[in-house]
Amino acid sequence: MYIHGYGERESERLLAQAASVVRLLHGDTRFPPGSRVLEVGCGTGAQTVSLARNSPGAQIVAFDHATASLARAMERVAAAGLSNVEFLHADLHALPFEPASFDHVFICFVLEHLSNPIAALQLVKQLLKLGGTVTIFEGDHGSAYFHPDSEMAQRAIACQVELQRRAGGNACLGRQLYPLLVNAGYDATCVTPRVVYVDATRPDLVDSFTRKTFTWMVEAVREEALAARIIDAPTFDAGIRDLYRAAEPDGVFCYTFFKGVAVKGPSV
Amino acid sequence: MYIHGYGERESERLLAQAASVVRLLHGDTRFPPGSRVLEVGCGTGAQTVSLARNSPGAQIVAFDHATASLARAMERVAAAGLSNVEFLHADLHALPFEPASFDHVFICFVLEHLSNPIAALQLVKQLLKLGGTVTIFEGDHGSAYFHPDSEMAQRAIACQVELQRRAGGNACLGRQLYPLLVNAGYDATCVTPRVVYVDATRPDLVDSFTRKTFTWMVEAVREEALAARIIDAPTFDAGIRDLYRAAEPDGVFCYTFFKGVAVKGPSV
Repeated sequence: MYIHGYGERESERLLAQAASVVRLLHGDTRFPPGSRVLEVGCGTGAQTVSLARNSPGAQIVAFDHATASLARAMERVAAAGLSNVEFLHADLHALPFEPASFDHVFICFVLEHLSNPIAALQLVKQLLKLGGTVTIFEGDHGSAYFHPDSEMAQRAIACQVELQRRAGGNACLGRQLYPLLVNAGYDATCVTPRVVYVDATRPDLVDSFTRKTFTWMVEAVREEALAARIIDAPTFDAGIRDLYRAAEPDGVFCYTFFKGVAVKGPSV
Repeated sequence: MYIHGYGERESERLLAQAASVVRLLHGDTRFPPGSRVLEVGCGTGAQTVSLARNSPGAQIVAFDHATASLARAMERVAAAGLSNVEFLHADLHALPFEPASFDHVFICFVLEHLSNPIAALQLVKQLLKLGGTVTIFEGDHGSAYFHPDSEMAQRAIACQVELQRRAGGNACLGRQLYPLLVNAGYDATCVTPRVVYVDATRPDLVDSFTRKTFTWMVEAVREEALAARIIDAPTFDAGIRDLYRAAEPDGVFCYTFFKGVAVKGPSV
């Protein structure tokens, strides 16, 4: 279940996230001309644009189950002048594709919302040709730390983690990509961390990542966290203030994304 | 105050640490031929060897206040066949050097043990020529996370952090390099994170870093932590078991070091 919401500010958050970390995440993800690539859960297309732009000769098939997000993704890809993406309204568990019909699969910020990510990885493995690859990106909220340190900020972040857990997901999935891919039966798994380190020498990241990606994401769960009595309002609000504090000129903010790539080998 | 101890196992720990992370930390640290470089607090010389090897044309002056460590550092540098290091038994606060007598200063895993790291940075700034640089390396224990996650392991790590704090140091200093350098009056500060990501595809790092660098370091504070009643024995021991658990084939361990470089500009 997707817990970040679908509102206006959320759209801007996803956009800011994509803009600030796009090179760090996607800079080394390229699929060869002529290859057929499935994007699982494209959402509003924030990652689809990078994916399609970096692999202009590949044919992307992007699907999502949320029609409003899909419409936004189509607009985005069209606005970027990209013509190598085909969109599909579909559910992961009822995809209209033959086995072994894709060269590669791309899954960005999706597994964290699934209660059984291994099953999802096994499912898309059936769609891959032998020797094809799956590429996964996930964040990990347990990788967030900052200066000045703040227990209240960590408690506010823990609300987001807890609500995502209650919704069946896992906000600290990034560190698990290696065992997930191995357990799903993939070969040649290779995981690399991608650290977003933010200090005042990068004012663009201070604004787009520390404030408008991470802090906004935590701030967005305020009402839900209070309603669920996970935290009290003064503590949550102080935690959010402390996250904004890390965006001041002497503050520092760190967060790590993980990229995992693995190969579909011969079945044993 | 140095809290890691000076015993046999500690020497092996430092050695393992140096071997596994040496390229990640020092690979891009090079000082030009003819330059005079001061290494502050060289300890047993684990970093001195890399420093001297990577900058064969530079003249290194390495000092420490612990004579036993200094003797070990001399042996190490001699065993490595390096002849560009001069050793000095001295204290940071009573160095026998003229102002502006060094082109560069190198400080690795030292500031975390000082109660006033900014004062130390100001002090070495006086020894730097105008336009010279200071290069700092620090870890950050708040950057340690792992799979499977374990609250008891985090509590065992917190013992190390707390004991280092009581000894006047800061085991989570890495994230603060940027404000420390700015506050000490340096210019053009540039901080970069160096992530040690360890899974079963890197058995060398599993052994040398997860087990013999990080877990041994935490394990080493057991008696002191119990004596100080920071934790009870069953919890600490379970935490250590869980750290070793992260070194199993489906485990993952992450830790981040920070490198900071800054320039001595004209005094205002």
